[in-house]
Amino acid sequence: MRPFRRLIPLDEALQIAMEAARPTEQVEKVQLAEAVRRVLAEDVVAPIDVPSFDKAAMDGFALRSLDGRGGVRLRVIGKAHPGEPFGGQVGPGECVEIATGGPVPKGCDAVIEVEATKHEGPEVTLMEEVKPGRNVSPRGEDIRKGDKLVVAGKLLKPGHLGAISALGIQEVLVFGKPRVAIFATGREVRRGGTLGPGEVYDINSFTLAGLISEKGGMVKLFDPIPDEFQAIEDAVAQARDHDMVVLSGSTSVGERDFLRDATESLGEILFHGVAAKPGKPLLLGRVDGGLVFGMPGFPASCLLLAYHILLPVLRKMARLPVGPLTMRATLGEEMPSKEDKTQLVTVFMEGGKAYRAFRKSGSITSVSAGEGYVVVPAAGRLKSGDVVEVVLF
Amino acid sequence: MRPFRRLIPLDEALQIAMEAARPTEQVEKVQLAEAVRRVLAEDVVAPIDVPSFDKAAMDGFALRSLDGRGGVRLRVIGKAHPGEPFGGQVGPGECVEIATGGPVPKGCDAVIEVEATKHEGPEVTLMEEVKPGRNVSPRGEDIRKGDKLVVAGKLLKPGHLGAISALGIQEVLVFGKPRVAIFATGREVRRGGTLGPGEVYDINSFTLAGLISEKGGMVKLFDPIPDEFQAIEDAVAQARDHDMVVLSGSTSVGERDFLRDATESLGEILFHGVAAKPGKPLLLGRVDGGLVFGMPGFPASCLLLAYHILLPVLRKMARLPVGPLTMRATLGEEMPSKEDKTQLVTVFMEGGKAYRAFRKSGSITSVSAGEGYVVVPAAGRLKSGDVVEVVLF
Repeated sequence: MRPFRRLIPLDEALQIAMEAARPTEQVEKVQLAEAVRRVLAEDVVAPIDVPSFDKAAMDGFALRSLDGRGGVRLRVIGKAHPGEPFGGQVGPGECVEIATGGPVPKGCDAVIEVEATKHEGPEVTLMEEVKPGRNVSPRGEDIRKGDKLVVAGKLLKPGHLGAISALGIQEVLVFGKPRVAIFATGREVRRGGTLGPGEVYDINSFTLAGLISEKGGMVKLFDPIPDEFQAIEDAVAQARDHDMVVLSGSTSVGERDFLRDATESLGEILFHGVAAKPGKPLLLGRVDGGLVFGMPGFPASCLLLAYHILLPVLRKMARLPVGPLTMRATLGEEMPSKEDKTQLVTVFMEGGKAYRAFRKSGSITSVSAGEGYVVVPAAGRLKSGDVVEVVLF
Repeated sequence: MRPFRRLIPLDEALQIAMEAARPTEQVEKVQLAEAVRRVLAEDVVAPIDVPSFDKAAMDGFALRSLDGRGGVRLRVIGKAHPGEPFGGQVGPGECVEIATGGPVPKGCDAVIEVEATKHEGPEVTLMEEVKPGRNVSPRGEDIRKGDKLVVAGKLLKPGHLGAISALGIQEVLVFGKPRVAIFATGREVRRGGTLGPGEVYDINSFTLAGLISEKGGMVKLFDPIPDEFQAIEDAVAQARDHDMVVLSGSTSVGERDFLRDATESLGEILFHGVAAKPGKPLLLGRVDGGLVFGMPGFPASCLLLAYHILLPVLRKMARLPVGPLTMRATLGEEMPSKEDKTQLVTVFMEGGKAYRAFRKSGSITSVSAGEGYVVVPAAGRLKSGDVVEVVLF
């Protein structure tokens, strides 16, 4: 066994990891209806005016505002519906019945709403004065041709899809999701079937896959691999074809913990060992352009460190907002620090207060029973009644 | 034209809609790795203990605690690695080298960590007293066979996937996503291609599809349909095969607004017309088990009412948490009310304050330029400096 060279503070590990994370340059075309929550990779510049014609904003009668005095009677010479323009020209003393969204006919510069008129046979009587522009959405009012409507880097929400679709654009270029390869290590790890003596079911691959796919990564889930040098080196080599390879287990300092050596044989170690509980044997390396995350094998350690370190890295790579979702809460009990280690303590909420859910690093229920986690600083102490930020799962 | 029968307050509309929403009873099996953010439809009861054997929590030596006194020398009679148990029985004066995760051999009840020993040749010297249970995670410590581990109705997060995978379960039964059919109405609405005179590109189908798919619905996007009674009735009839049909346009009281009549011909109207700006011509109906949402045709109206009324309904149907994501903010300017109407005013943030982004109901940029919206109550008035909740997009 070879001891850790140095345990670095958790904040330092996060900083190194964030510096190593490169925002993706990969792009792909996606259908607009599927582009929500993706990150736009090109400026969208309006090729047309929206609306592309003067448009009625109410149901009523399109007229020349010169004729728009109360009591005036106008002759109705036609109809304009959305998509069905009135083809002719409207002259003095004339008007056209128009529906909301209909194109305002040539000659007209206002629409009087139906409620402000009396319609009798072929004529309509205005009840009010009509000023120019009344109830007309002029061409280009919403978007002007040449406007830079949505800029590259924008996280697309439904409103942005609307603005883009208004231009007749149905596909957009977005940044690719970071490609993440996931491996569990250990001959004892199996997925499904009946457990043999000493075997355990794979937990970490599922928690990592769930988290990474939920938060903007594109997961490739590999079968568990044995804790043998060659198998682990082959897994690490996937960093050449992925933005990130995430392995769980094999990151400590035991005789079968080959991840450090395998990473060094193909690339470099950025850090190995953090002063955190849980999470000590966290490893970060780099092989060509890809990052190698060695997550602790203990399920609670693996998932909490994934939330705390891997997730901000993934978000930065994906060009997504990095900050975690937090909730302010009052602690219902004391949380003493673990001397020289930063602690990540899972908590559940009860009666408006946060209580410890964390049991052991090896217990997945330490996480599944919690709604989030609290960071207890090294050599710090949080007291009952303290107001803390809970990072939400 | 037939006037609205009565404009109901927006809150009342929301209440009627929420009462009409039925939580889905449809279920489907999904792969565990894809179950994140789905809603569990069955209790998961543990069929096994986790761990399923007494397990070493540290690298070191498994021994009988009866032998565990400082200075004692024990004979190392074998090795136990994860998935590779030591087959024999450990007797007095003996121990087994063990790695974290390895099964504790028969006869042993403790593991002394390697750091607290001296290992010389075939023997190991204990440096400390060893109490029973030291560094042993006993069978069933994390999860006990028969435990109800995750209950039906739970929103699955990565930690829950972990707890379920620890049991060897790789597929789970989840509630189906509400099936939503989306139609834009109007002969003038086209999707792609070049605009003819008076034509506009379809906006509402994309904003609705983006919002509904992002928030937990399963969207089927139909081609735009003409504003003709038969076409609209056929669209409404999709409520028999979907949990919800959402149409935009054709909900007002003009001569081509057929949605009310089409809905009445197949089912019933729950409300038509709300005292809101934007959003007046909102319609809710029901045909057999399916809801019919008639959204205003104006793009900003359509999307804001979808956030405010349709979304909580969708979330309830999906059995997902209903409350919107909000952020507290200080208003940077006054927002007077619109007499008798509740206003939904989109806002953008600048210098920590919220300012109006809303321009017109017909402007999609009223929404795309905002980060969320503020509810200004009817006959109310929000002043600059007021602290408000912004519903985030």
